[in-house]
Amino acid sequence: MSSKTVVLQLICPDQPGLVSELAGWVATNGGNIRHADHHTDAGAELFLSRIEWDLEGFGVSRDSIPIAVNALADRLGGQAHLSFSDELPRVAIFASKQSHCLLDLLWRTRSGELPMQVPLVISNHRELETLCREFGVVFNFVPTKFESKSDSEKMILDLLTKHQIDLIVLAKYMQILSSDFLGKFSTIINIHHSFLPAFKGARPYHQAWDRGVKLIGATAHYVTEDLDNGPIIEQSIAHVSHRDEVDDLIRKGRDIERIALARAVRLHLRSQVMVYRGRTAVFA
Amino acid sequence: MSSKTVVLQLICPDQPGLVSELAGWVATNGGNIRHADHHTDAGAELFLSRIEWDLEGFGVSRDSIPIAVNALADRLGGQAHLSFSDELPRVAIFASKQSHCLLDLLWRTRSGELPMQVPLVISNHRELETLCREFGVVFNFVPTKFESKSDSEKMILDLLTKHQIDLIVLAKYMQILSSDFLGKFSTIINIHHSFLPAFKGARPYHQAWDRGVKLIGATAHYVTEDLDNGPIIEQSIAHVSHRDEVDDLIRKGRDIERIALARAVRLHLRSQVMVYRGRTAVFA
Amino acid sequence: MSSKTVVLQLICPDQPGLVSELAGWVATNGGNIRHADHHTDAGAELFLSRIEWDLEGFGVSRDSIPIAVNALADRLGGQAHLSFSDELPRVAIFASKQSHCLLDLLWRTRSGELPMQVPLVISNHRELETLCREFGVVFNFVPTKFESKSDSEKMILDLLTKHQIDLIVLAKYMQILSSDFLGKFSTIINIHHSFLPAFKGARPYHQAWDRGVKLIGATAHYVTEDLDNGPIIEQSIAHVSHRDEVDDLIRKGRDIERIALARAVRLHLRSQVMVYRGRTAVFA
Amino acid sequence: MSSKTVVLQLICPDQPGLVSELAGWVATNGGNIRHADHHTDAGAELFLSRIEWDLEGFGVSRDSIPIAVNALADRLGGQAHLSFSDELPRVAIFASKQSHCLLDLLWRTRSGELPMQVPLVISNHRELETLCREFGVVFNFVPTKFESKSDSEKMILDLLTKHQIDLIVLAKYMQILSSDFLGKFSTIINIHHSFLPAFKGARPYHQAWDRGVKLIGATAHYVTEDLDNGPIIEQSIAHVSHRDEVDDLIRKGRDIERIALARAVRLHLRSQVMVYRGRTAVFA
Repeated sequence: MSSKTVVLQLICPDQPGLVSELAGWVATNGGNIRHADHHTDAGAELFLSRIEWDLEGFGVSRDSIPIAVNALADRLGGQAHLSFSDELPRVAIFASKQSHCLLDLLWRTRSGELPMQVPLVISNHRELETLCREFGVVFNFVPTKFESKSDSEKMILDLLTKHQIDLIVLAKYMQILSSDFLGKFSTIINIHHSFLPAFKGARPYHQAWDRGVKLIGATAHYVTEDLDNGPIIEQSIAHVSHRDEVDDLIRKGRDIERIALARAVRLHLRSQVMVYRGRTAVFA
Repeated sequence: MSSKTVVLQLICPDQPGLVSELAGWVATNGGNIRHADHHTDAGAELFLSRIEWDLEGFGVSRDSIPIAVNALADRLGGQAHLSFSDELPRVAIFASKQSHCLLDLLWRTRSGELPMQVPLVISNHRELETLCREFGVVFNFVPTKFESKSDSEKMILDLLTKHQIDLIVLAKYMQILSSDFLGKFSTIINIHHSFLPAFKGARPYHQAWDRGVKLIGATAHYVTEDLDNGPIIEQSIAHVSHRDEVDDLIRKGRDIERIALARAVRLHLRSQVMVYRGRTAVFA
Repeated sequence: MSSKTVVLQLICPDQPGLVSELAGWVATNGGNIRHADHHTDAGAELFLSRIEWDLEGFGVSRDSIPIAVNALADRLGGQAHLSFSDELPRVAIFASKQSHCLLDLLWRTRSGELPMQVPLVISNHRELETLCREFGVVFNFVPTKFESKSDSEKMILDLLTKHQIDLIVLAKYMQILSSDFLGKFSTIINIHHSFLPAFKGARPYHQAWDRGVKLIGATAHYVTEDLDNGPIIEQSIAHVSHRDEVDDLIRKGRDIERIALARAVRLHLRSQVMVYRGRTAVFA
Repeated sequence: MSSKTVVLQLICPDQPGLVSELAGWVATNGGNIRHADHHTDAGAELFLSRIEWDLEGFGVSRDSIPIAVNALADRLGGQAHLSFSDELPRVAIFASKQSHCLLDLLWRTRSGELPMQVPLVISNHRELETLCREFGVVFNFVPTKFESKSDSEKMILDLLTKHQIDLIVLAKYMQILSSDFLGKFSTIINIHHSFLPAFKGARPYHQAWDRGVKLIGATAHYVTEDLDNGPIIEQSIAHVSHRDEVDDLIRKGRDIERIALARAVRLHLRSQVMVYRGRTAVFA
């Protein structure tokens, strides 16, 4: 199961014959399908499909696949996205002072759980520099002050371009990216430390404690301009009781934050997530 | 383990020596303690205690226990609550059209899981009359129209008085009790069909679907005037995916609703819940 | 989404082009595919597929579909199974004295959650007769004594034939069906009151308590001759602590038993389960 | 809440007045109780108690507390255990090649989640040496060959003595400690990669995959001579499906292994676990 594969994600208006059309195209060209997942959103009248097949023995050359796939998508009035399992996405991890999510992602990358490269880590603090050095990852300190936020974001965008970044992961990055920034780079996964949409905004664990909840949550989602409102990829929960202080909620929260974030990143990297109408379909 | 016990719940300002004082009082009078649970809320500077001991062999007569306990509470500047395991609370279940929570509570009562009596069921619809008849429970139809809401509530209050009701359980009762009503009867447990505080208000499953959540929840809580904001007793969750329609969320929700509600009612009936400052301590 | 559909389940040796072949056959005949799920077991070199499409507008007549499908399966060297959403399977529920699973299944059937008919309930005790009467279901008392077990099983088989039963659900039926019986009727779902394969055999909650576990489980599985070893469909768990006595484990177990069993039965009824090599693929 | 506390754990034959006696002793000496938890095992006729109080202001000097406590325990015919929150237990972590549990424990120690010191890591392989160096922890390579196992164990015991180790944590240490070793050092926590008692022994994930389970588990337990049969402290589970290969079970297992192990170690370090008759009471 370790040979190379290609994944096609397609969204188009629903119509009869789509599964047959897509699978037929792969089969006609000698492709051996490993996974084929489909979803129809009846209300939205949309068809979503994810097909993964072996690159070896496929009759269309690697360079020609995008052309053929785009032609197919055009004919169906939809949009296609391709990824190849041997091309490791280049990921920039953003963090502030807390280490748990960053460490977790670096360890999972090193151990092979997350098929990605991490050419740079960006932080608005210096606390995590040592950790990055231990993992042999470049650490970039980019301070963010209110009066020079646009300068900081410009510096960050330059770094993203220079390092050809495909995905940003906000691993407890305590800064809000401007809509201007999001207009220039928008493939971003964030971990929010609450069971969204409960406890939006600041200090969710304090809010949760005040409310006396019996479960806390963490939510990994794509970032959109509407803060804390992007498409949800993964949610995880932990039990709490009256014995737990705010600090205990924060401690328990760290475990569910890093697990929800790592799962979401893995799903994204394997092209198992499709976004449509503010929601996700997760083929897992 | 089936002999009779008495449970004392006490809340008072925190001070050294409280565990010793309470346990000492029970021990001095020959009481054999089965369970002793305590909690100190450091921020609120409050001490909460639940002590359960055998009634048999206890040196204070049953009638005198309340007097002694109140004297103790007064001395400590706190409030005490007593319950005896052989006195089954009298519970009125309120429901509208949906049967799952009502059936569940009636079955658990019949099978001995819930130590309570159900002298009456009140509904603003007639759908559940047959179910009540099957379980041999009195069904009271009390229609609730906007223009005569206070008349309906008066009728309900008369029924509660007549049947000496100790607790109301709102088992999917789709009516809001007025603050006037709550001023007259306020020991009420409700099941809210969401993971509070997310999705307050109407049609939470539709809200949850629109938001694209990956987990749904149900929350059992005490009723207060501030709607959906009462002290939480129990929360339960279920996983959902993009394949689930709103109807699937509602179906999955029924399972977590009835389980969260049944657990909360059982905890209350066994005097395992203590309320303070809009929160609960649950000794389970 | 409420119109009629047909579900094809197919297992065959893995080979390229299968998804295309199946989807192509449906599409060529004008079928609108609602769900298409596939799984390849690389080790077993098997391909499993479940395709669900609208019956309305499909170009092959209902009577001819089985013939066409079997021809297709033969050509692929596999086996096919068909089901139509408007044909409610006829289910016999077997139970002994405990009511929780039986009540749950009857309520879910009545409320529309489980697409099935229940022409008969069979029990080796009389305790559940009243419950069945309340739900308007025929109750059959079939005593099982050691010396006349084969007579009892013959009586049961006659009832199954007479009522044209498609599926048996063992809802806490405390009898072991003989291999002779299983040779004559083998579509049977059982709920085992443990997290299989832990605590096989008798009194699993006592075993679990003795072992001091922190989680208990329930397992819904197909019945095979090798007791407690059939293909697992669904498992559910509950937390326990040192405060829980054996009776508490049994009580908590009832909740996970009925939920795991109901889910498994629903998955089976909707043809979402496929069995192969002692395992199941569950397309949910 | 950060000031120093002392924890008393006491097990003795059950008798009336014990809570009062213990709490009274603390109160008489001016101790402010923070937590008091008790459990009575009715079958075993045993009373278990954990009391935590402030060291500041307590009328018995630190050196005299053990003497007083042992006298108390003797009088009650039981056994006492004391711990002080400002004395960090010295923990040796044993691991083989896999890094996830070791890294997790080292990170949690560094971040303050686990109140312990790690003077040494012992491994029968060299793979984890770099990781230990990054965390500034001494790494000891102790090869274990069949023919020289007793020599290896002697070397390990010498290291334990030299470093005054209080607790061993087996963090995926793929060696079995001899009963001779256990006779000399027995405060050991292990993580077993299955939902014990299912899948004892070797390669539990392969066993679980073969059996087709829908949930996998991990069990943290104290080590006893009877392999995989020691008192369970914590269990954790993860959902799996037919899509998961053995490698996926192993990957998902890593997450629940490290979480179950970290929780168990934290509970032990905070003296929240009491062992009796092959079981644990966990006051959390």
